[in-house]
Amino acid sequence: MQIGIVGLGRMGGNMARRLRRGNADVVAYNRSAALTDSMAQETGLVAAHSLQELVDKLPAPRIIWLMLPAGEATQNHIDQLLPLLSKGDILVDGANAFYKDSMLRSEMLAKHGIDFMDAGVSGGIWGLENGYALMVGGKPEVVARVEPFIRILAPGPDKGWLHCGPAGSGHFVKMVHNGIEYGMMQAFAEGFALLHGRKDFDLDLAKIAEMWRHGSVVRSWLLDLTAEFLQKGQGLEDIAPVVADSGEGRWTAMESIEQGVPAPVISLALAMRFASQGHFDYEAKLLAMMRKGFGGHAVTNAPVMDLSPGGEG
Amino acid sequence: MQIGIVGLGRMGGNMARRLRRGNADVVAYNRSAALTDSMAQETGLVAAHSLQELVDKLPAPRIIWLMLPAGEATQNHIDQLLPLLSKGDILVDGANAFYKDSMLRSEMLAKHGIDFMDAGVSGGIWGLENGYALMVGGKPEVVARVEPFIRILAPGPDKGWLHCGPAGSGHFVKMVHNGIEYGMMQAFAEGFALLHGRKDFDLDLAKIAEMWRHGSVVRSWLLDLTAEFLQKGQGLEDIAPVVADSGEGRWTAMESIEQGVPAPVISLALAMRFASQGHFDYEAKLLAMMRKGFGGHAVTNAPVMDLSPGGEG
Amino acid sequence: MQIGIVGLGRMGGNMARRLRRGNADVVAYNRSAALTDSMAQETGLVAAHSLQELVDKLPAPRIIWLMLPAGEATQNHIDQLLPLLSKGDILVDGANAFYKDSMLRSEMLAKHGIDFMDAGVSGGIWGLENGYALMVGGKPEVVARVEPFIRILAPGPDKGWLHCGPAGSGHFVKMVHNGIEYGMMQAFAEGFALLHGRKDFDLDLAKIAEMWRHGSVVRSWLLDLTAEFLQKGQGLEDIAPVVADSGEGRWTAMESIEQGVPAPVISLALAMRFASQGHFDYEAKLLAMMRKGFGGHAVTNAPVMDLSPGGEG
Amino acid sequence: MQIGIVGLGRMGGNMARRLRRGNADVVAYNRSAALTDSMAQETGLVAAHSLQELVDKLPAPRIIWLMLPAGEATQNHIDQLLPLLSKGDILVDGANAFYKDSMLRSEMLAKHGIDFMDAGVSGGIWGLENGYALMVGGKPEVVARVEPFIRILAPGPDKGWLHCGPAGSGHFVKMVHNGIEYGMMQAFAEGFALLHGRKDFDLDLAKIAEMWRHGSVVRSWLLDLTAEFLQKGQGLEDIAPVVADSGEGRWTAMESIEQGVPAPVISLALAMRFASQGHFDYEAKLLAMMRKGFGGHAVTNAPVMDLSPGGEG
Repeated sequence: MQIGIVGLGRMGGNMARRLRRGNADVVAYNRSAALTDSMAQETGLVAAHSLQELVDKLPAPRIIWLMLPAGEATQNHIDQLLPLLSKGDILVDGANAFYKDSMLRSEMLAKHGIDFMDAGVSGGIWGLENGYALMVGGKPEVVARVEPFIRILAPGPDKGWLHCGPAGSGHFVKMVHNGIEYGMMQAFAEGFALLHGRKDFDLDLAKIAEMWRHGSVVRSWLLDLTAEFLQKGQGLEDIAPVVADSGEGRWTAMESIEQGVPAPVISLALAMRFASQGHFDYEAKLLAMMRKGFGGHAVTNAPVMDLSPGGEG
Repeated sequence: MQIGIVGLGRMGGNMARRLRRGNADVVAYNRSAALTDSMAQETGLVAAHSLQELVDKLPAPRIIWLMLPAGEATQNHIDQLLPLLSKGDILVDGANAFYKDSMLRSEMLAKHGIDFMDAGVSGGIWGLENGYALMVGGKPEVVARVEPFIRILAPGPDKGWLHCGPAGSGHFVKMVHNGIEYGMMQAFAEGFALLHGRKDFDLDLAKIAEMWRHGSVVRSWLLDLTAEFLQKGQGLEDIAPVVADSGEGRWTAMESIEQGVPAPVISLALAMRFASQGHFDYEAKLLAMMRKGFGGHAVTNAPVMDLSPGGEG
Repeated sequence: MQIGIVGLGRMGGNMARRLRRGNADVVAYNRSAALTDSMAQETGLVAAHSLQELVDKLPAPRIIWLMLPAGEATQNHIDQLLPLLSKGDILVDGANAFYKDSMLRSEMLAKHGIDFMDAGVSGGIWGLENGYALMVGGKPEVVARVEPFIRILAPGPDKGWLHCGPAGSGHFVKMVHNGIEYGMMQAFAEGFALLHGRKDFDLDLAKIAEMWRHGSVVRSWLLDLTAEFLQKGQGLEDIAPVVADSGEGRWTAMESIEQGVPAPVISLALAMRFASQGHFDYEAKLLAMMRKGFGGHAVTNAPVMDLSPGGEG
Repeated sequence: MQIGIVGLGRMGGNMARRLRRGNADVVAYNRSAALTDSMAQETGLVAAHSLQELVDKLPAPRIIWLMLPAGEATQNHIDQLLPLLSKGDILVDGANAFYKDSMLRSEMLAKHGIDFMDAGVSGGIWGLENGYALMVGGKPEVVARVEPFIRILAPGPDKGWLHCGPAGSGHFVKMVHNGIEYGMMQAFAEGFALLHGRKDFDLDLAKIAEMWRHGSVVRSWLLDLTAEFLQKGQGLEDIAPVVADSGEGRWTAMESIEQGVPAPVISLALAMRFASQGHFDYEAKLLAMMRKGFGGHAVTNAPVMDLSPGGEG
């Protein structure tokens, strides 16, 4: 049984490795032929140097799993693949795509006789060893055909993966997963910052993180990771105080608005990332100017507690 | 080696059991003599029917571990114990006490020659089997004397417990731990509510929780617990939508304000609990009246999307 | 000079009155002919009993101002009007429409030779006397043709209205206006609730609101309105604690996400409205169940401060 | 009738001026004699070069109004004044003091036979012309004696001031006033930032602010101030993106926690100020490291949207 993989980056590459370790036959294509060849060498997968070659080397009906950046990159590859595919072929999108895009994609592909499965993939660089949590959406018969590969990729053949529902539902569940992750990360960041800020106790954050890993209510994989990097240094002097955000945090916050279901913690975790990126600066300037407006306060770089009479109007 | 325990409630009772399983000699006192006697029967601990008897049955220098509600109950028992104790005795406070109270208590007791250790205890009803995460504060020589009992109570002799720093630091670390917990819980609640709210996918929340337990970024003990109760029912029809809060969430939010370090997610998770308790109602009424004031909107029970012209001023 | 008005509801009706007071010639159509006729009687406007009649009674090039619920209702009327209009006619949308819809509408109408102007209208039921703040978008020559009517509707011929920019920009500015309003309202609601909650001072909220109206930093129209309704009663016992939301709050929060510019206060004010509508209940139930999961806490209707040991894990 | 003033800073100086314009007899003391003398020259007030001299120049029973930084400065002056005062003298604290401190101060002074009135003062640098909103607390007979001066300071003899309740209540109401102000300011900052961020409309923020001042729902004094400074420049290039905070915002957030009444918007406005002061940086570093931990993401200064597969776990 064979599977095609398009995209051998950080995620796609390791997924190809894990599939090979599980004895799946893999044909892979990557923009850079050198990387494809090197992976072929390392894992025994079959290298394809074009999408045409990839399709040619897979017997129909094919399963082709895309691991590409969401949005344009994914869409471009689908556009190129479409004329090469045959009825009954399956395209799997493993990117962090917006679930409504996946729903549309599924419909669009169906018109060409191509089946679609969306797969939310979690596990990052640890997935190679631990397996990937896989949240898949699509028609039951489509998922059934991809299942043998899912069982290899997942943490166990029968755990860590779920056929969530129709097309789009896999990416939807992954989106919410990432939203939760934003909130959890922010909660940990706040807690460790408060430990860090109470200087008189001279706390060892690495030891606290390690201790909490056992028996506490907050034990979690994110805590495991935190314990690990804190052990290497707690000052974080060389780290830029800037946190990237990804589509899924934004979509989760938008989903809350669309549903009218409050997600204040997830939304706020996202807003704090925006702030870390410098996008609160204009607001802060406006606030400083307003304070100057009513109180005559200097607009300086002085982040003081202002205890003067009329200090805050 | 012997330890005295005061308070055999949900937490204290199980801690006594775990100490007995670890072959510690335990003398225990509880307000209700019947409970004390029943525990003596069950575990072989020595029952004391008064604080005087408890003190008498422990050879000096004593170690007495209080597991009582924070605040008044704890203070009352300390007031009663103080005249009964001898120099060099150790009082351990295992309650969810405010860390600044513990700092003052330590100083106050020191004036009477009594040593103090504060112990933040995590693990809930699962601590009996899994061990309790213990965050302790106090002088090194004091902690060293209590250590044999800590090693039994903890998840392992050398894991899941930490001497964090001076008196008060144990309760401080526990306080922050609970603050993080508030944020994590709220993040999960939001995520599952969004899964629940997207009706067209007809998602099985129990299966999703179970799947995330393996390989996902959000795997955690709180998720384990969530997976367990969701399996028994996802509608939660009989559950009141009311969440109690405890001192430690409030103190963490206050610590953030005192330090000037933002903890928006923890603070907000707390505020949402307040709202669940009905304490947002007056605000909501004010808002409804303001809308009526500018827009002539009916002040009814109609939670509609208002799309009329001038709908929101 | 003549203007057509479609929709004589709370907003449209008063705008027609204000235009008539300003001696504008108004032809109006409303779904209910009775209302149209009664308005004709009252104000001297010309009643039209169908869109066809409305168009017929206006000399080309026409100006027709729609004051209809955003979304479907507005679109339906545009669809019906389109075949009746002539090149060079102007459609004004005064609804709380989403600015991206207005941008599309403008392009779509342009293809039919119809000009478009979007008008964000603020002022609620007070606009009749005070004038309406008008935020308009569209081509300069289009706005110039509507300007005589704008000058009557606005608080003053040269104040309280602005040609903000191209089509869509009027609704965009109105959207942000309403977002700000959400935040301000919530800030006032929180403040008055805190005054209300500190029972020992026995504060008179109506007198405080009235006092703040003069010389304070928070003086504002929303405060004027609040002072007015508080004077009639502070208990608000008969008011449902439920706050409707409208599209523009949601769109502002989404705009923040799209721009990556944090709007935490506006987003949160929106989330609190969702909560007031009962949409936090499922989350609260999940939280109560988690607390039960780790702490064995009763899942009851008891919003207590839980000070027991292990009270919060 | 005479009043003593201690503190001729930004607020105290203008209050002395306004009292003199209202023909009150003012004796004033300021740390810097030069300033006191210059004010005497300008306004005709009587200069005192020591607290002793101030007390000597006022006939008993005295009224002495302190306009000093809250906390230590105020307390020091009270400590120095106490031995100089006579029974029946009144001390007024016009600082932004914590209301619980004012309650204690009132009790402490009562033991020495000195009466106390707390006065929350709003209006900033504009109070000289517009009058100061005054929120006063204390015994009715005490307030009655100070009332003639209050009527001069306030925006009108019978408006813009209120005897709120017992000692402490004046500062309490002022505290909440400032809390509301934090929320309103943040709401405006967010709104204008969103206007600023939608570059394609090329909006003129100054004109929008000016327009909103008339007829809109958000019209307010804060908007008046904003319109004024935006007219001088919208880029704010030279302004540091740092916002000071003052005690009263923190106390309002703490009051919410103490009461268990949610004040999410006020609390968050405060947290954003903390963030602007650089106190979110450690959290942002922790978040960046967590992302690196699970995703292998570079910890660089790149605030990008990360759309790669597994981009966010």
